[in-house]
Amino acid sequence: MFVYKSKIRVRYVETDQMGVVHHSNYAQYYELARTECFEACSGMSYESMEADGVMLPILEMHSKFLKPALYNQVLTIKSIVRELPTVRLNVDYEIYNEAEELINTGRTTLVFVNKSTKRPCAPPERFMQNVRQYFE
Amino acid sequence: MFVYKSKIRVRYVETDQMGVVHHSNYAQYYELARTECFEACSGMSYESMEADGVMLPILEMHSKFLKPALYNQVLTIKSIVRELPTVRLNVDYEIYNEAEELINTGRTTLVFVNKSTKRPCAPPERFMQNVRQYFE
Amino acid sequence: MFVYKSKIRVRYVETDQMGVVHHSNYAQYYELARTECFEACSGMSYESMEADGVMLPILEMHSKFLKPALYNQVLTIKSIVRELPTVRLNVDYEIYNEAEELINTGRTTLVFVNKSTKRPCAPPERFMQNVRQYFE
Amino acid sequence: MFVYKSKIRVRYVETDQMGVVHHSNYAQYYELARTECFEACSGMSYESMEADGVMLPILEMHSKFLKPALYNQVLTIKSIVRELPTVRLNVDYEIYNEAEELINTGRTTLVFVNKSTKRPCAPPERFMQNVRQYFE
Repeated sequence: MFVYKSKIRVRYVETDQMGVVHHSNYAQYYELARTECFEACSGMSYESMEADGVMLPILEMHSKFLKPALYNQVLTIKSIVRELPTVRLNVDYEIYNEAEELINTGRTTLVFVNKSTKRPCAPPERFMQNVRQYFE
Repeated sequence: MFVYKSKIRVRYVETDQMGVVHHSNYAQYYELARTECFEACSGMSYESMEADGVMLPILEMHSKFLKPALYNQVLTIKSIVRELPTVRLNVDYEIYNEAEELINTGRTTLVFVNKSTKRPCAPPERFMQNVRQYFE
Repeated sequence: MFVYKSKIRVRYVETDQMGVVHHSNYAQYYELARTECFEACSGMSYESMEADGVMLPILEMHSKFLKPALYNQVLTIKSIVRELPTVRLNVDYEIYNEAEELINTGRTTLVFVNKSTKRPCAPPERFMQNVRQYFE
Repeated sequence: MFVYKSKIRVRYVETDQMGVVHHSNYAQYYELARTECFEACSGMSYESMEADGVMLPILEMHSKFLKPALYNQVLTIKSIVRELPTVRLNVDYEIYNEAEELINTGRTTLVFVNKSTKRPCAPPERFMQNVRQYFE
């Protein structure tokens, strides 16, 4: 298992006329947290992998909205990788507000894809080398 | 059951550097389609309900990304309400590209909330009056 | 001179906690209107030009925010091309609400760029052939 | 004069199919930087002012796009307040990439507005008290 905590400050533009963060922004919060988690876990940056010809598009996403997030709050996003990535990478998310209340949970499934063939592929070997240690 | 079809043209800003629509935009597509479905089914506009003191925040969302959507494509979003709304409103979505391929499926659960008390409430009676006919 | 009118319905996600459209969305409204204006004026689609290796990035943008736009309003965006495009394309915008009040004015300067060399270039000849008639 | 430097990391969702940050995101970068500048200069948070009944909508914005910004780059946004704020607040922006190249310049004009009357008003006195020292 690998767990990583990211911090994000809510932007004004992310609020809507209900006075809370619009739900479409959570996909962006997950993505930000996942990118940081990816780098911390694998020791390689996501954009270096993309430059090497491997992309990581999303297959599936699930969100539960428990409590609203408000402008300028600093949210903590916990990214949790429970199983060794294969062609697919599953990441769970827990988002907490400043009062440490759980306000959102999510799950994304992504797939490693070869940029030229557009076909699913195994994760890059230098990704797996680093990642394996957390799942032994 | 009530089904409604919406059309949407993909905006340039919605693409990302993979050359496809970024997945965070689908929540916005669902919302647009849901709003039109809401009006067609109930005969009242969503903003008139909000002005009357009832909001409809989201509790849960689920998406499957089957094929990419591309810039300037006109997508068809089918909104499907399968059960009579109660305090909760469930809407399913199917998104089709111009070749009539299914590219995305989704489901949202929303809850009617009283704007003053911030508590769940029954849908407005004038909403239910119109909606009931589709679920008899 | 070439003038084109586009219609756009304000999305919920575009509102912010002031209860009005967040100003960052106007750049997207201009872009939508400009794309339609581009197609109407030149008889070619923007994405076919991009597929042919010519991009049209933005150099400069200016906006005045006169009145707020509200959720679900249908806005009319007038795109105005006052001079024959050269390497640069200038477009002015006037946005009107449903009461035909002018709520926003804008101006963008874009530049035709060769996708391979990344250098400014003349507009494609089939673009100019159609466009010239409006500036004689 | 008051100058404040903010840092921002480019999000994937902010890129478009040209492979660079879509220009509509710069308004959000300015806003983020401006909010931090506002707090540093006045010692009060923007949301506490809004809670006290004073809003700060935008009147005018101007941007020059000099070089593209890329995914995951850390940008430095310099916010510059050149004159003592009155009913209006002018802020200039300079955005630098990691190679310290100037990639964007901007200017926004905002106006202090009383939330109840919706009319322009003087900035809150506790805002001015702190701010004055930088303009003597």
